[in-house]
Amino acid sequence: EAASNSADFVGVGVDQELISSVPSHNPTFVSRNFTDAEVAYCTAQPSPSSSFAARWAGKEAVFKSLGVASKGAGAAMKEIEIIPDSNGAPSVVLHGDAKAQAEAKGVSKVLLSLSHSDTVAIAFAQASKSS
Amino acid sequence: EAASNSADFVGVGVDQELISSVPSHNPTFVSRNFTDAEVAYCTAQPSPSSSFAARWAGKEAVFKSLGVASKGAGAAMKEIEIIPDSNGAPSVVLHGDAKAQAEAKGVSKVLLSLSHSDTVAIAFAQASKSS
Amino acid sequence: EAASNSADFVGVGVDQELISSVPSHNPTFVSRNFTDAEVAYCTAQPSPSSSFAARWAGKEAVFKSLGVASKGAGAAMKEIEIIPDSNGAPSVVLHGDAKAQAEAKGVSKVLLSLSHSDTVAIAFAQASKSS
Repeated sequence: EAASNSADFVGVGVDQELISSVPSHNPTFVSRNFTDAEVAYCTAQPSPSSSFAARWAGKEAVFKSLGVASKGAGAAMKEIEIIPDSNGAPSVVLHGDAKAQAEAKGVSKVLLSLSHSDTVAIAFAQASKSS
Repeated sequence: EAASNSADFVGVGVDQELISSVPSHNPTFVSRNFTDAEVAYCTAQPSPSSSFAARWAGKEAVFKSLGVASKGAGAAMKEIEIIPDSNGAPSVVLHGDAKAQAEAKGVSKVLLSLSHSDTVAIAFAQASKSS
Repeated sequence: EAASNSADFVGVGVDQELISSVPSHNPTFVSRNFTDAEVAYCTAQPSPSSSFAARWAGKEAVFKSLGVASKGAGAAMKEIEIIPDSNGAPSVVLHGDAKAQAEAKGVSKVLLSLSHSDTVAIAFAQASKSS
């Protein structure tokens, strides 16, 4: 079908975080919110705190792009996993409730980009579905 | 039709504002640029100045996403209304000339996301049309 | 065809740059990374350093949106040209390897928006292909 690859917008999400405000030195925060693969990636980067903050902003941006109601502090950010693709670009893998909520809305793809300066991390996410 | 829900890009818009630079304490600025619903929402938030600044950035981002020529200081930002949807996420409603210009370009949807830190508000908008 | 105008996502890109960190006063940096049309545009703006920084962020965001492997310092940012359209909005023209890589991925359009404060430039890009 000509239309089989076309995409429909579901939502967009933007987030910014002060790198110093993301408590990546706190093991409880890290283990609660980041997967083993994310921890391995971030701790191997030149500035782990910047990498954790960028991924934290990324998780928030993805969450916003899905357009689901926030569960507040209970939102399971660990279910939004951000891992590098073969080009090193961030790719999004959803798990658990986040995956179920995305599927319920028909979301088939979430694109994400991250950027950080010395002090601030920003992220942009875009959720779409095949039509 | 398989394609009936598919979307076509029109434009994207990004904006950032220093919260301290948006004169939300100025009643003339506020009444000129924000609808009653926006004023009611922002003044009820924990930090009204942050909420006004985020919406101001949002209006600028939406304006950029529409890809229309700027009328400069005469651009009617009040015609770009940003109100919370049922999940609390920002949704865009166009009025007046902004609505007419968007319709003339075939824009059927504008997605928006907002974020603010203690000092800076950023916004991202994406305009699309059904194809 | 109903679907002939519909678009498919390829990627998104976000970038931020401290304006003071972009060496736009360095003629080698400028001539290596900016086209004659970009230089003419930026130097005619009220704040050339802000305009150069915004375009530099824009080039990085476009590069990320294409999802191709980075060539590091060898990436030819001059091949990603950002020029104003008839409304003054930034439009993207690809040249050389950047154009070839985009075509190989089926990218038919890259949308871009730029914003700068007194100190920071941010950019957002979205690459899509016709389906």
